[in-house]
Amino acid sequence: MTSPIESGISTQTHGSRGIRLAVDAMGGDHGPSEVVPGALDHAAAHPEDHLFLVGDPDRIRQAGGTLPSNVEIVPASQVIEMHEHPALALREKKDASILVGCDLVRTGKADAIVTAGHTGAAMAAAVLRIGRLPGVDRPALAVQMVRMGRPFVLLDIGANPDSTPENLAQYARMGAIFAERVIGITDPRVALLSIGEEKGKGDQRIQRATELLDASDLHFVGNVEGKDLTADTADVVVTDAVVGNVVIKFFEGLSTFIFDLWRREFSGGIRGRLAYLLMRPGISRIRRVFDYERAGGSPLLGVKGAVIITHGRAKRRMIGFACEVAANTARTGVPALIADALREDALRAAAIAMPGPDATEGGAVG
Amino acid sequence: MTSPIESGISTQTHGSRGIRLAVDAMGGDHGPSEVVPGALDHAAAHPEDHLFLVGDPDRIRQAGGTLPSNVEIVPASQVIEMHEHPALALREKKDASILVGCDLVRTGKADAIVTAGHTGAAMAAAVLRIGRLPGVDRPALAVQMVRMGRPFVLLDIGANPDSTPENLAQYARMGAIFAERVIGITDPRVALLSIGEEKGKGDQRIQRATELLDASDLHFVGNVEGKDLTADTADVVVTDAVVGNVVIKFFEGLSTFIFDLWRREFSGGIRGRLAYLLMRPGISRIRRVFDYERAGGSPLLGVKGAVIITHGRAKRRMIGFACEVAANTARTGVPALIADALREDALRAAAIAMPGPDATEGGAVG
Repeated sequence: MTSPIESGISTQTHGSRGIRLAVDAMGGDHGPSEVVPGALDHAAAHPEDHLFLVGDPDRIRQAGGTLPSNVEIVPASQVIEMHEHPALALREKKDASILVGCDLVRTGKADAIVTAGHTGAAMAAAVLRIGRLPGVDRPALAVQMVRMGRPFVLLDIGANPDSTPENLAQYARMGAIFAERVIGITDPRVALLSIGEEKGKGDQRIQRATELLDASDLHFVGNVEGKDLTADTADVVVTDAVVGNVVIKFFEGLSTFIFDLWRREFSGGIRGRLAYLLMRPGISRIRRVFDYERAGGSPLLGVKGAVIITHGRAKRRMIGFACEVAANTARTGVPALIADALREDALRAAAIAMPGPDATEGGAVG
Repeated sequence: MTSPIESGISTQTHGSRGIRLAVDAMGGDHGPSEVVPGALDHAAAHPEDHLFLVGDPDRIRQAGGTLPSNVEIVPASQVIEMHEHPALALREKKDASILVGCDLVRTGKADAIVTAGHTGAAMAAAVLRIGRLPGVDRPALAVQMVRMGRPFVLLDIGANPDSTPENLAQYARMGAIFAERVIGITDPRVALLSIGEEKGKGDQRIQRATELLDASDLHFVGNVEGKDLTADTADVVVTDAVVGNVVIKFFEGLSTFIFDLWRREFSGGIRGRLAYLLMRPGISRIRRVFDYERAGGSPLLGVKGAVIITHGRAKRRMIGFACEVAANTARTGVPALIADALREDALRAAAIAMPGPDATEGGAVG
């Protein structure tokens, strides 16, 4: 029997069109020693894809040995470190691996990019070099959140503080396309995260965004609360950067806290150690539910290319999943679908705003 | 050995001044059958306090039997149900138990009130009938959050969407007084919940509130992230209603989700059941860490009286703790201390805003 989560995160298979994937080989806490093997795992599993490993050629070769024919090195002499100020670092380090990688997407040499580097720098590099899709006001950072069964998409988790209701409505559209194409959820249910389920609740931004989503042709199921995030109530949950960021970091902190409590009990004394031995299969089932590595990382939605920003601590296995999610995002045409959908949304909004014949006549008479 | 949590939530003892405590006997999912016994537990443990049980006399007597001399019934013929619209219900049900109870505080007959009823109706009733303290722009709903060791105070968890930076600064002041007086934390560390620890992060409201708290004489330790909520980084964490509400409900949902996963493993098969028997002492230690009942409920800070809004699902034990927290909030003079502190803050702000002699001279010359 497979775990319920196995049917879920980013394990969809999507045709066989080869994707050209740039990988920032230098980013993250582990650098090439984990990123390169993870990328090579993807290259081996997907011979139809072509990978560009961006960074220091010597260190990449050291980590990867003899490279297969669908992998090539693109040299970059600099790295943006995790502690650096993103804007400053991007200005000063013109040959940083994340910039060189984004340029491969900008110039059409690559369809997608994966980085485990500095999140702020990666978002800024993607927006500056790859650019926003037409109609996108602000790109949003999304994440696949675990729960029983299929994951759901939560966004924005930190790209844009001070978002407007219109931004939230765009996030909903972008998140729904990602959920449908990459996770494989048909007609994804979209919800706004709020204080209560009733429409009058929440702040002014939420109330206005509720109106916008009500008027959209998305499958909007209304507002959900914090407790609903672990239940199967929506496939795409839209919120502002501050709330989304607090949620994912609190999730990380609280689940670690609870598992540490259990670990302490299982390691204390004979009773605990014996219970641990008995519970081992159960513990690994629980671990699989919380296997966030399968999500690969956070897609930055709304830019002209598939951009996956994975965890700074990501190791080989998670890097492999990040490459898979990036390739699937590109293969299923998520960026182009977002651009199309936003164009249609804009046309629909313009049609509603345009006065009809009656209104014109009324104006003439009045 | 005592659990770390035992030294924590609301178990401070505070002198022996008798408190007159109104208890909304009708509120909550269980009504008098749980509220009355919980209140009587408090009355028995604190003979110096005097309790008013507000509601249907017959049902109160049925639930409580012969009442002790420090408990009396105050009749109220109506109840606001959990599903009602708060403002509408308060207008229509003039003899609702929550209104009659708040009137006891307004007229000075009671110092404090406890309710397990409709949170929105209770907040509205408290503001309308008891009234805000001078200088309070908006009262805030706080909660004692569990972690290892002492709990911390999180506010606002849902009183005021669309709070201003000035509101957040007032919440910080009010939360610090509650933490110091009721939890017993000397010089409590105050933090703002944000996207990152750096001061430039977060939205405009957070950035401006950071400046206000930096300029205050509170023990402001800066900004914390979602992952810090389970760590011992601050004693008072200030945030907006939407974020705070999502956090506490996500906490409830996620911890239930994780414990359900364990429960399923412990109840499945011989191995699980045997492991459960071995782990029983460990499991009860873990349960004690998550014993939110000891917090009693949520203090509504900034009104002219001690108001504790406890969980709708609260049973006898939690009602007892709610009475204790309400009595301690009143006994330690939290409302008066908040009024004093806000008056001092206003004087300090006025002194800074007032031009000094140099500025006046400059003005005359210019």
